[in-house]
Amino acid sequence: MVITFLSDFGLQDDFVGTCHGVIKRIAPEAEIIDITHGIPPQHVLQGALVLCNTLPYMPEGVHLAVVDPGVGGQRRPLALRTGEGRLLVGPDNGLLVPAAEKNGGIEAAHELANPEYALDTVSRTFHGRDLFSPAAAHLARGVALEELGPPVDPQALVRVDVPKAEVGQNRIRATVLYVDRFGNTQLNLTRADLDQAQVLPGVRVELELALERYYAVAARTFADARPGEVILYEDAYRNISIAINGGSAAELFGVAPGQEVRIHLRTP
Amino acid sequence: MVITFLSDFGLQDDFVGTCHGVIKRIAPEAEIIDITHGIPPQHVLQGALVLCNTLPYMPEGVHLAVVDPGVGGQRRPLALRTGEGRLLVGPDNGLLVPAAEKNGGIEAAHELANPEYALDTVSRTFHGRDLFSPAAAHLARGVALEELGPPVDPQALVRVDVPKAEVGQNRIRATVLYVDRFGNTQLNLTRADLDQAQVLPGVRVELELALERYYAVAARTFADARPGEVILYEDAYRNISIAINGGSAAELFGVAPGQEVRIHLRTP
Amino acid sequence: MVITFLSDFGLQDDFVGTCHGVIKRIAPEAEIIDITHGIPPQHVLQGALVLCNTLPYMPEGVHLAVVDPGVGGQRRPLALRTGEGRLLVGPDNGLLVPAAEKNGGIEAAHELANPEYALDTVSRTFHGRDLFSPAAAHLARGVALEELGPPVDPQALVRVDVPKAEVGQNRIRATVLYVDRFGNTQLNLTRADLDQAQVLPGVRVELELALERYYAVAARTFADARPGEVILYEDAYRNISIAINGGSAAELFGVAPGQEVRIHLRTP
Repeated sequence: MVITFLSDFGLQDDFVGTCHGVIKRIAPEAEIIDITHGIPPQHVLQGALVLCNTLPYMPEGVHLAVVDPGVGGQRRPLALRTGEGRLLVGPDNGLLVPAAEKNGGIEAAHELANPEYALDTVSRTFHGRDLFSPAAAHLARGVALEELGPPVDPQALVRVDVPKAEVGQNRIRATVLYVDRFGNTQLNLTRADLDQAQVLPGVRVELELALERYYAVAARTFADARPGEVILYEDAYRNISIAINGGSAAELFGVAPGQEVRIHLRTP
Repeated sequence: MVITFLSDFGLQDDFVGTCHGVIKRIAPEAEIIDITHGIPPQHVLQGALVLCNTLPYMPEGVHLAVVDPGVGGQRRPLALRTGEGRLLVGPDNGLLVPAAEKNGGIEAAHELANPEYALDTVSRTFHGRDLFSPAAAHLARGVALEELGPPVDPQALVRVDVPKAEVGQNRIRATVLYVDRFGNTQLNLTRADLDQAQVLPGVRVELELALERYYAVAARTFADARPGEVILYEDAYRNISIAINGGSAAELFGVAPGQEVRIHLRTP
Repeated sequence: MVITFLSDFGLQDDFVGTCHGVIKRIAPEAEIIDITHGIPPQHVLQGALVLCNTLPYMPEGVHLAVVDPGVGGQRRPLALRTGEGRLLVGPDNGLLVPAAEKNGGIEAAHELANPEYALDTVSRTFHGRDLFSPAAAHLARGVALEELGPPVDPQALVRVDVPKAEVGQNRIRATVLYVDRFGNTQLNLTRADLDQAQVLPGVRVELELALERYYAVAARTFADARPGEVILYEDAYRNISIAINGGSAAELFGVAPGQEVRIHLRTP
């Protein structure tokens, strides 16, 4: 059985390795795929988006996700089953919901309340190790979701608020969702939004970020643009992103997730 | 058989991947758990503390650790067996000793001297690849510890010096042991030390770091404090740590491992 | 079957984890060894050198490598077989060639053109996920190289240009190839070059970098030098490197890959 694992733990400390150890002590046969541990610390929305984007590429199994600023407080620890039969484990802070809803919907949700499926001592600050990893490992061994604790109404789960873009006649107001290692800057837009605004490949627009304006061209891929040209393209997860052919858009623009980007249309 | 692996190699270069390759060529069945490779370069004490904290969460097996500023010099390469039957492999510079002593004590130690269990060519600068990984892999395949080389008196092993706190009537003098990704700042204090000083949850103290003073409150977890409040809490490895609810204590204070922290008690 | 994986994807994003997921969906039995994902973004030469250095330490299997600035453009996606029977998968931009030539030569090369061995939808910007990982996974399951697409003449493959050093009577002109986490600075020189210039262990030289000059001594290992002394030594991959005993040469000199280093001989 595969357990995928996504978190904001980073790889500098032992957090990820310790969770691997805990899982392997309980479920020696389980195989762990680390989706990423580079979610910015405590950014639940980014964790939720990355989990949602990547889940379809993962083998079906148990999907552990921990971005948990509310650890030790009132937020519920959860496990849920999607319509596709995937099992997701993590905090009830919205992290799991977009991925579950995109992959068959939430069929059942249970609170992690049964101490049999946690470590003997549960710390107040590292539920990834003491609660979530053991639950994931026990699920991977075949323990039924229902054994982990009482059911929770899927409607009652905490949701994250994904910012919505405004697509107007002359202007699109979008928000930066994510910036990757290459500086590619993902917006909360899809190709349908650009199609609606008639921004087809080859069309030029103006980007406005932090009071600065830049020309950009809609393109299918980096190779369609000249070196140094700013492009708008549909990225590999089907979001519209901003890139610079051969450079880092994020560095040029100094953007960060959450920032507004205006796209001015009908540029002469 | 599980081999755990901790080092200061980082993940930017190929050092960790190359050691994995070497292990898998010798012991294809071995499973490797990377505890962390983010120990600051050549910081033996930090490596020793992290290994000691995490070993109880790891499956029993072979535990490879390489933080090795003395590579190529006089320091001995070692393998040892703990009272619990764990096998530890690494340099004789103190890295392995705290973990071994906390997990059953050192039952036997052997110098890695048998060239049959090293690569054919041993470089002078990468014993992780040429000496320690092969030894760990051969142990995982069932080679006896005694085969690796002559015994070493456990009393003769190099020890690291873990700084000790001073707990006084009005003041505690502690040292920062570790700073994690979230900025949580671990001290060389345990709850017993705070109990002795009557710093129970809810009690306020003053922290003095680098000539600055800050109020802090003893708390059970982040969620017990108001946002932005500085807390003293028992962390997941049972050390007392400093944190800021919703922020980075390390960033606010500008602290680094080795720095002194004074805790002034009986704050009105 | 082992699949090794090298890229410039970094570990902050999900790129590596997503490729692991894709591989495991196709070839659940395959075991993945991550050589490194820390190649600087789009630096094909550095990727090629690291793959070439590390391949001999890897179990024989499928060797996936992705540093791919030309993704989505005209560059061919490739798989090739070496004289040793290793299978290499990656873009035709020179990344695979030095490793293949050093490990038995290129016996056969095929373009990845058969859509049966790619994902159903191939994006224009993430061939690592959609094209290269599936091809590697199918090869690991036993699909014949010839099935992946039409043969390509090995002579027609793109080559990378590895800079050559000039070894003169009084001076060596070398280039920095690589800088590692410890600040050790690898040059395009071998011990044979130093031998030819009579720079044997113990001999002193002057290094000239970016208009500054520094004394250095040829040494066998860090431990042969005094703390703080700059040394020239044969590193673990048999390149000549510059290091500082107990410090970071790269930090002191401010060097980066591609920079010229002059070594002045016959220093009095």
